[in-house]
Amino acid sequence: MDSSIKFGNILVVGIGLIGGSIIRALKENSFAGGVYGIDVDKDALSSAYELGLIENIDENIPGDLDDLLVIFSVPVLSIQEAMSTINTMISIENVTYTDTLSVKSSVLNTLQALDKNVLKSFVLSHPIAGSEHSGFKSSSADLFKEKLSIICPHEDNDAQAVSSVTDFWKALGSYTKKLSAQDHDELFGKTSHMPHVIAYALMNSLYQDLGAKTFLYSGGSLEDYTRIASSDPVMWKDIMVSNDISILNSIESFKKSLDELSGLIDSKNATGLIKFFSSVKIARDKSILGKED
Amino acid sequence: MDSSIKFGNILVVGIGLIGGSIIRALKENSFAGGVYGIDVDKDALSSAYELGLIENIDENIPGDLDDLLVIFSVPVLSIQEAMSTINTMISIENVTYTDTLSVKSSVLNTLQALDKNVLKSFVLSHPIAGSEHSGFKSSSADLFKEKLSIICPHEDNDAQAVSSVTDFWKALGSYTKKLSAQDHDELFGKTSHMPHVIAYALMNSLYQDLGAKTFLYSGGSLEDYTRIASSDPVMWKDIMVSNDISILNSIESFKKSLDELSGLIDSKNATGLIKFFSSVKIARDKSILGKED
Repeated sequence: MDSSIKFGNILVVGIGLIGGSIIRALKENSFAGGVYGIDVDKDALSSAYELGLIENIDENIPGDLDDLLVIFSVPVLSIQEAMSTINTMISIENVTYTDTLSVKSSVLNTLQALDKNVLKSFVLSHPIAGSEHSGFKSSSADLFKEKLSIICPHEDNDAQAVSSVTDFWKALGSYTKKLSAQDHDELFGKTSHMPHVIAYALMNSLYQDLGAKTFLYSGGSLEDYTRIASSDPVMWKDIMVSNDISILNSIESFKKSLDELSGLIDSKNATGLIKFFSSVKIARDKSILGKED
Repeated sequence: MDSSIKFGNILVVGIGLIGGSIIRALKENSFAGGVYGIDVDKDALSSAYELGLIENIDENIPGDLDDLLVIFSVPVLSIQEAMSTINTMISIENVTYTDTLSVKSSVLNTLQALDKNVLKSFVLSHPIAGSEHSGFKSSSADLFKEKLSIICPHEDNDAQAVSSVTDFWKALGSYTKKLSAQDHDELFGKTSHMPHVIAYALMNSLYQDLGAKTFLYSGGSLEDYTRIASSDPVMWKDIMVSNDISILNSIESFKKSLDELSGLIDSKNATGLIKFFSSVKIARDKSILGKED
């Protein structure tokens, strides 16, 4: 599997759930190059070193790593600071960059204000893999296996860099699809960020009404349904702030559907309710099948 | 396990997902008494007969079954008609009744208008087990194992009947808790019916906006999150109509939380968002732990 990773060295910036899973997967795949990691969490860093996942014992990274892939795996709004830090540490010759962030347009905007060489070599990516658990302790070598990784090439990208980053995710077990940064953000605003908004709002209202009784009589479904409301608060604050327009549009669209359904319940409109539920069931069953084509 | 089922005969009215799972569990537990089933779906009925799950080949049930438990497992608004049908078929001497319906107050109202002997012997119950799949074909002998079954005794109930029905659910592998019908409906309006409202409304808005692309770039979480929007439309129409007040109250409460969160996103209020997400995470993690005490 290692043979398809076309980099001599890999530096992962942020070794939490996603970054930690990357260095674990590299070890499991017997990646022959050098693997380095940095993180503000010193415990995570020393754990990774002790597990033999990274070569550096502290934040002193060799400045001349050749044929290097730098992967940013930090909260969305921390990327500019993380890039500044990295650029003081390493030479930007022969470096390819990628990230694992859940919002792409704001990262692209940040890049467009920087050095053109960095822009050219920075391939935006987003592995659709995660958990409500966060941090290095929850990371796993299997996190990306058979999961989708979205690649968002932009017009200034070097084609070779796009190809190498795509192959990198494949080597970690992912399959890949391409989307523009804007399409990515609009789509994930609806299909991922919006379910998080709902889970947080539902859990908030349930706990206000029911307190400690919230899960007392639940058969487990509610735990599943609110699971993502236990996600990392800072990560999700950054996503909401960075993709605010798409998310607010999704909320408006959702509220229209909710008000329509609410009206049908209020008027005990049996025919309308069956029609609503049936058309939703058909749409869901059909579009899931469409995915598998 | 059979020894704790204190009935000589069991008649299941409606052998869909829940009723079908009951007759399968009785067979698996080698229940020594007679098991009978009726359903408007003749194919389900003949399948159950051919599998040796029920003794009747058609809807001719012996009228003199002694020591009988009748279990209604039909959509909420069909129970009155189902009870009328059953009362033309069997003697009401020495009969205990229960049900598996998701709403309890409306069933209790129906009972209170009927024969006092039936009211006394009818123990409302609600096994918290289900699936987005419906029908006999999806039923399973294991459906109730290690699942909660709620018993809602009412003031006219015979204590012996409550005890026997409680033991029945335990024999099928459930653990049981008691709630009043009203408390049940208020609680499940929030913790079960409301997530269904949300899933239907979310799926409706996503499909309107994205059509066939809805699941195309999803990593699987959205499928999980909208799974319950593929539930049986008639069953859920009945639940929404029967528990409308509790559900509408829950929608109002949820919309307040949603609007609060929406306002924080709109104003890019980082501190407010972290506070909102953190307090929700703490509330969820704490109340789930509380459940396990």
